[in-house]
Amino acid sequence: MQVRYQDIASWIEAQIQQRVWQVGDRIPSVREMSRLQHVSPMTVMRAYEQLEADGWVEARPRSGFFVRPHYNQVMVDSLARPQADSQWLNTHQDVFDVISASHKGARYPFGSAFPDPQLFPMQALGRAMARVLRQSSHPDHFTILPPGDMGLRRLIAQRYLRQGIRVSIDEIIITNGAIEALSLSLAALTQPGDKVIIEAPAFYGVLQTLERLQLEPITVSVDSETGVDINELESALASHHVTACWLMSNFHNPTGASIPDADRPRVVSLLAAYQVPLIEDDVYGELFFSSSRPMPLKAYDTQGGVLHCGSFSKQLAPGFRVGWIAAGCYAMQIEKRQYVSSLAVGAPNQLAIADYLKQGGYDAHLRRLRKTLFVRLRAIRAELKSILPSSTMISEPKGGYFLWVTLDSQIDTRKLFQALQPFGVTIAPGALFATDDRFNHCFRLNVSIDGRERIETASHNEALDGLTQIATSLSALSTHPTVTAEY
Amino acid sequence: MQVRYQDIASWIEAQIQQRVWQVGDRIPSVREMSRLQHVSPMTVMRAYEQLEADGWVEARPRSGFFVRPHYNQVMVDSLARPQADSQWLNTHQDVFDVISASHKGARYPFGSAFPDPQLFPMQALGRAMARVLRQSSHPDHFTILPPGDMGLRRLIAQRYLRQGIRVSIDEIIITNGAIEALSLSLAALTQPGDKVIIEAPAFYGVLQTLERLQLEPITVSVDSETGVDINELESALASHHVTACWLMSNFHNPTGASIPDADRPRVVSLLAAYQVPLIEDDVYGELFFSSSRPMPLKAYDTQGGVLHCGSFSKQLAPGFRVGWIAAGCYAMQIEKRQYVSSLAVGAPNQLAIADYLKQGGYDAHLRRLRKTLFVRLRAIRAELKSILPSSTMISEPKGGYFLWVTLDSQIDTRKLFQALQPFGVTIAPGALFATDDRFNHCFRLNVSIDGRERIETASHNEALDGLTQIATSLSALSTHPTVTAEY
Repeated sequence: MQVRYQDIASWIEAQIQQRVWQVGDRIPSVREMSRLQHVSPMTVMRAYEQLEADGWVEARPRSGFFVRPHYNQVMVDSLARPQADSQWLNTHQDVFDVISASHKGARYPFGSAFPDPQLFPMQALGRAMARVLRQSSHPDHFTILPPGDMGLRRLIAQRYLRQGIRVSIDEIIITNGAIEALSLSLAALTQPGDKVIIEAPAFYGVLQTLERLQLEPITVSVDSETGVDINELESALASHHVTACWLMSNFHNPTGASIPDADRPRVVSLLAAYQVPLIEDDVYGELFFSSSRPMPLKAYDTQGGVLHCGSFSKQLAPGFRVGWIAAGCYAMQIEKRQYVSSLAVGAPNQLAIADYLKQGGYDAHLRRLRKTLFVRLRAIRAELKSILPSSTMISEPKGGYFLWVTLDSQIDTRKLFQALQPFGVTIAPGALFATDDRFNHCFRLNVSIDGRERIETASHNEALDGLTQIATSLSALSTHPTVTAEY
Repeated sequence: MQVRYQDIASWIEAQIQQRVWQVGDRIPSVREMSRLQHVSPMTVMRAYEQLEADGWVEARPRSGFFVRPHYNQVMVDSLARPQADSQWLNTHQDVFDVISASHKGARYPFGSAFPDPQLFPMQALGRAMARVLRQSSHPDHFTILPPGDMGLRRLIAQRYLRQGIRVSIDEIIITNGAIEALSLSLAALTQPGDKVIIEAPAFYGVLQTLERLQLEPITVSVDSETGVDINELESALASHHVTACWLMSNFHNPTGASIPDADRPRVVSLLAAYQVPLIEDDVYGELFFSSSRPMPLKAYDTQGGVLHCGSFSKQLAPGFRVGWIAAGCYAMQIEKRQYVSSLAVGAPNQLAIADYLKQGGYDAHLRRLRKTLFVRLRAIRAELKSILPSSTMISEPKGGYFLWVTLDSQIDTRKLFQALQPFGVTIAPGALFATDDRFNHCFRLNVSIDGRERIETASHNEALDGLTQIATSLSALSTHPTVTAEY
């Protein structure tokens, strides 16, 4: 049995390894620790001397014990109990790995789904946030319950109206980002076991949400230029009893596809004919490269059956987690469901975005953002064209910040992802975007990420280095077919 | 068939009634509307003249058409399609009504679950938020994915440690308020059809979450002083195959009860013996009236089986929606689940709270807050004692801001809730806190709400007026037993 002082010493050591106490932090005083652990000060003192001898802390006269610089060893893991687990946690380990790798300090996070936050007016949002928090005179100011702040909902309704779309303020519900908009919509419309039409390839969040809600996916192909195949959609509706349909109308993730304007009324009327509600994921709609914003499918909805989901995360305020649903006739049931899941969206976040929108710089910001994304996308696409094998197909999206790259069919891009890891380069392998293997030779590439130098003027460009590594790694993979086959 | 200009006029009229355009707003110009609706300017002009004739707008020379002051008529409701609905939306209409009534401008929202936001340091939080948003230099600054900001998680871990509780930084997950902490925990631990031990009475969010996740509640009685009945807990564990247990250890909602310190180890060891994980809802734990914070059940956990859920909403930053779970050995599976439900918590919110905590005023704020709540609770309790019938039982909580009032058994407090509505007074009827009718003669009362005048010094006190109305309405109900019986 370990003696008591060693127990305390190893506990503090574990806390230092787990970064609870960082280099330079003062650990609790001897007296405090003695009180907390119900041991004598002498026992604590012996423990601290032990820690000092082991190089974890140093005593400073009349100040206490401070954490010393040290190698952060492998963590003593308290999370080791085997987990009784649902299946999706394991099947989607790939997604988890890609998101983590892109987020945790990759130099070239081309696999990320997030736009480069340096493209956004954080200073102006900061001023808006400060104004909002100074105005806390009213007792209800920070208790914003579903369906969300009336002022923000009004501003969103006005933007629909300015595009000529009839959306009632009463059908708009503010959500914790678009992810909550989409998953609340699906949860409100379906029961476990129901069939839901989704795209192939689809945003991996769609696949995960269906699995979590125990829904059966019915897939419809997406062309990387023209979007969802309408004939397939029609036959899916005819041959399955479908409860809902989830589509991205504009600058589809991952392909960048957009449904042609002429086809949009037919998509809506087809779904209406089968009385299937449409969850329209339109988070990239503001990032168009043409002269005007594409019409959402919602614009053609005459029966309240389209739930149009948007967000400020992709074009204004990353990290604020403010999205919305224009939920048509489903607004009330979604509002009630939000009460019992997340309850509400951050009040200052909603109020600050409303304040920013009222200041009037939003449209000018969007124009700059679209231009930057267009320039970056064009430059990265041209570079990829020149360095990847000539058989490679690269999408030509009319908006957004994703390229969809299709390689020779024998390449598995999960292998490419792994080969790129040592170089700090990530991609999003095609396998993430379907439940089968038909996109395993594709990958998604985020073109927004170079915030350090403007891509069209830079002599030495960071992002291009990362792209070159993709070509190099791909070339190495292709010339070692046995490695590829082993995957 | 309606002519086109009338169609446009009635559309704008509906928008005005729905508050998309408010009094003083300029509606879109004739040219803009003509372009949007693909009609001639002349048609729009006729529509606007119609609106002017009907008193909705007024023309201002060289400026456009502006919304005039008007009676806001009953809304033209686009949400009228009958809703194919899950059962809980209907069964919990009561909860929805009480929350809405308390929120939507009640003068005395005693039924509210939220603390008065005037008790919180919004100015200091505003300065923290502004600092955080000025520091947006790093590209990852606003992309905080699960498990949340490392700095904030470290500060939370340090607070556990200062209380002598061994919590690893790696088991802490930041959530969108405590509601998400609790529902993520339950979702991660259970499958539909599983049995879960809950309290009776229980926070209505518990009942709603169980219903949403299709879980079967096994109830254990709560004494309004000593909390959950441990003998009942033991026999529930012995006689049912239970998957999880959800308890409030400190200042229970709605009763205010706390489990006696001496009983806490036994609760934890009992659950551990049956290998049943405990979801510990401890959102009121910081609001103690005694000399030190009560130990959570988590403090006695040696096996990682307790998921301790906390939040800053009740004691620091209402509306920020920042809560957390110290999830023991379940941390990884909850983190993954958060990726596919809400994705993440607002980045500036997490960073601002971390910044505020580092400034060092938190403990002083908490001391002031506890004192204020104690003084208000004592004053309101004394007033209720003096004005309600002598048979009334009123809880004596040792912290938090709820009183639990038990009336004569023939009173239905839903009736009292209704009787109070015309006076702008709300209570939370006991029926909300159970799936059966055994608490129908009880109600919960929020004592935090008087932010306008300090209750102990005011000669004319707003909150006391509201209390008097409760006594008056109750008296009227009691003397009309037929009305009560009709409910």
